[in-house]
Amino acid sequence: MAVDTARRAYRRLLERSRELAQLRGIMAALRWDEQLNLPRAAAPHRARELAYLARLLHQKATGKRMGAILSELAGVDFPPDSAEAANLRLLARQYERLAKIPPSLMSRLAHAATLGQSVWAAARRRADFALILPQLSRLVALRRKMAACLGWQDEPYDALLQNYDPEYTTRQVEAIFSVLKAELVPLLAALAGAPQRPDGELLRVDFPLERQQVFGRAVAVSLGFDFDRGRLDTSLHPFCEALNPGDCRMTTRYDSRWFPEGFYGIVHEVGHGLYEQGLPESAYGTPLGETVSYGMHEAQSLLWENLVGRSLAFWKHFFPRAQQVFPEALLHVSLEDFHFAVNEVRAQPIRVDADEITHNLHVLMRFEVERDLISGRMEAADVPSAWNEKSRQYLGIAPENDGEGCLQDIHWFEGLFGTFPSYALGSVYAAQIFAAAARALPELEEDFARGRFLPLRDWLCENIYRHGRRYDARQLVQRICGGEVDAGALVRYLKAKYLPLYGLA
Amino acid sequence: MAVDTARRAYRRLLERSRELAQLRGIMAALRWDEQLNLPRAAAPHRARELAYLARLLHQKATGKRMGAILSELAGVDFPPDSAEAANLRLLARQYERLAKIPPSLMSRLAHAATLGQSVWAAARRRADFALILPQLSRLVALRRKMAACLGWQDEPYDALLQNYDPEYTTRQVEAIFSVLKAELVPLLAALAGAPQRPDGELLRVDFPLERQQVFGRAVAVSLGFDFDRGRLDTSLHPFCEALNPGDCRMTTRYDSRWFPEGFYGIVHEVGHGLYEQGLPESAYGTPLGETVSYGMHEAQSLLWENLVGRSLAFWKHFFPRAQQVFPEALLHVSLEDFHFAVNEVRAQPIRVDADEITHNLHVLMRFEVERDLISGRMEAADVPSAWNEKSRQYLGIAPENDGEGCLQDIHWFEGLFGTFPSYALGSVYAAQIFAAAARALPELEEDFARGRFLPLRDWLCENIYRHGRRYDARQLVQRICGGEVDAGALVRYLKAKYLPLYGLA
Repeated sequence: MAVDTARRAYRRLLERSRELAQLRGIMAALRWDEQLNLPRAAAPHRARELAYLARLLHQKATGKRMGAILSELAGVDFPPDSAEAANLRLLARQYERLAKIPPSLMSRLAHAATLGQSVWAAARRRADFALILPQLSRLVALRRKMAACLGWQDEPYDALLQNYDPEYTTRQVEAIFSVLKAELVPLLAALAGAPQRPDGELLRVDFPLERQQVFGRAVAVSLGFDFDRGRLDTSLHPFCEALNPGDCRMTTRYDSRWFPEGFYGIVHEVGHGLYEQGLPESAYGTPLGETVSYGMHEAQSLLWENLVGRSLAFWKHFFPRAQQVFPEALLHVSLEDFHFAVNEVRAQPIRVDADEITHNLHVLMRFEVERDLISGRMEAADVPSAWNEKSRQYLGIAPENDGEGCLQDIHWFEGLFGTFPSYALGSVYAAQIFAAAARALPELEEDFARGRFLPLRDWLCENIYRHGRRYDARQLVQRICGGEVDAGALVRYLKAKYLPLYGLA
Repeated sequence: MAVDTARRAYRRLLERSRELAQLRGIMAALRWDEQLNLPRAAAPHRARELAYLARLLHQKATGKRMGAILSELAGVDFPPDSAEAANLRLLARQYERLAKIPPSLMSRLAHAATLGQSVWAAARRRADFALILPQLSRLVALRRKMAACLGWQDEPYDALLQNYDPEYTTRQVEAIFSVLKAELVPLLAALAGAPQRPDGELLRVDFPLERQQVFGRAVAVSLGFDFDRGRLDTSLHPFCEALNPGDCRMTTRYDSRWFPEGFYGIVHEVGHGLYEQGLPESAYGTPLGETVSYGMHEAQSLLWENLVGRSLAFWKHFFPRAQQVFPEALLHVSLEDFHFAVNEVRAQPIRVDADEITHNLHVLMRFEVERDLISGRMEAADVPSAWNEKSRQYLGIAPENDGEGCLQDIHWFEGLFGTFPSYALGSVYAAQIFAAAARALPELEEDFARGRFLPLRDWLCENIYRHGRRYDARQLVQRICGGEVDAGALVRYLKAKYLPLYGLA
């Protein structure tokens, strides 16, 4: 094909890609608004609006025009390391995957998800799994169909997993997680019987909401979040929604008598936000302006929340400031006791309240359940018994009822399967990436203690953010750490931190 | 055409109409968000998103599919008074008008409007008309083109006027306004020399913002606004944006030392909101579920703001409550002095600060200027001198500079021409409608004094809201008042209220 023709086709491809990004940005604005501002009676209208835009997006992403542009470019060899080659490869892959899904399956899923969401709230409140079993069975059946449409290597779950972390098969994830399981279950048990315990009660006193907001916002600025290009608000569940390069919106929720709730909500979402704000703006609307995967996104939030935000060096800088803002609560508390308290490890049934060790185990058991569900080795009706069995095995406890057991997360009941592994993959990446950053920036801890967090932010930008999707998650880890994705760094980090803290080393 | 085929075509027409309404609702959500939540750097992105959706909307409203459905239905005779006949007539009219506008003209206008908006802010701040003259000339030229595309009866301005108030030609508006001019200019002069003057200073004391919010919200509930289907927020300029039947969003702005600013912002927007919330929900997405015209919409807001919210009966109920909420400001003020103060009439240069008499005169002079601009009797460069001349003639004062003269409203500088008459038509309708309501509901004043506003709301719903666009504004006035649209009722209302208040009768 003539160079000019190829260039024109490529330009049309990027135009289409930018149009899709713009539609996704519009949907993100409506989702954010839905969580924060929606009057009660507007919920069904918003659901229809989002379904309409999702249909439009799917049509445009899989339509004849997109197909024609991609066929025009099929024979073109851009230089292998060029932006053109990367964008073309990633857009062609996205087109091929999406085009395999019949629109009718999409609408049936969207409809079943809406139903599932609405029944879930009641089922959870009443701890009544039977109430939602029909919806769950239907969603599992539809997702199995989707896996069949998409195709898979080892087992059907591969197909759904790859919606979020495209670099993996189920078996590869299992191999990484088996190390975590072997190491973290005994570590949790050891900490449960440790000679030293933190005093969590010192965080359960009055932290006035307005001051929490002011303090959290100041910390977000210190970590490098740009409020000219973003916001921080309050919502029922913390989240981060990037509308476009100028508009990254984070939320948290505050508890006036439990400091970590609001604060670590912010630090976690700042991690997501820094990634979004660090993407190259000039590549907006193309794969090179997008984040890599759910796992790599979660790695950024967990890195800032846990490896930075729960470190002693972080609090060396911020604790005196926190004491000024919350004198009644903190003036008579020592830095060491405070640091220990924000690192309390305790097996309890609720994932979103879990510490950084237990959270991985919560994720692992969900991975095993959803994998068996999608791959057909388990039926929806068996979820509660499998859940409770795995909970005993991983956490050493069983939930009191299904409300705080298998009904606690909305994911499955709105039809999301394959997304849980991202959380644990993220913590694995975060430990590997942070270890590499600490090698590259030998003054990292001194920097933190002096309130300097931008060197780390800039290093992450240089090594991860600015590349967009040029490299996938495993390639990024390889480039940064010089090795494969490996749970070893996470295990080493957790042991090095928690064994001494709990008096076990 | 067979009845079945016609019914199918009509069903497809309504589906398309609902799709267009949904797109407009999505745009309304983004506009609301733009006014309230947008980070600084996101403004150009939001402008592109809205332009994209406007293009999509125009395509779908004028596309081949819409044309085909309408031709299928062209020969069908639905019963003349049926919903089908009304919907078909109104959708066909909309299609014909929109299809006359070439997409290229739409994009050139959108582009010029964006430029105009951005230059306007600086021009107004510096009171420098020359700075924005090129943009204004361009916008006038493009709007003259649009008038030529749309076609007109008496003069080009007809075509733009009918974007907002489709029932009128320029001459018909002029006939109504000439009565206002003849009556209100001398009335304003008489009041300026009146023996009694209100004490406006008693509203210029401390009214704490949080308490203004609580009080305003309570009043909105009393007037019948349903907060399950809407919101009230704060923004730079008050507005009301209806996203869909479940989501009507009003805003106001507060001044902690000027009570009327925030309060009458709310009552005005509640008037718009009640109209939106009173539309028949089952007709959502079709003309029979839409409001009639800009003028009729403004009639609702002005009716509640002025004829209800500035009446003595209204304050008989609410003043004791306001005294409880703002004891420092109001405990030693009498009901009569307070009522007189919220009805202060004073010629001053700024329209948005104008009282209910002067506001009409502000509108009339803008109508004359924009009419001459669009119909080609005046060029953009002549706007300041024409403005200042008319200001002396109508208001008896000239602005100190163009910043508080012809640059004060953004309308023209974002390319809007033909919308000013709606404000004065609205006040004409409001007086006629209110007079009819008072005849139909003889206890109206007693009701107000006892805090009962729902009888009026329900009467307006019965006579106006629930009809959607089944009748146009003039037909509604005819049905309600048994006569033509006529400025007489407004003049009589204003004289009956203000002459005694100012000691002139």
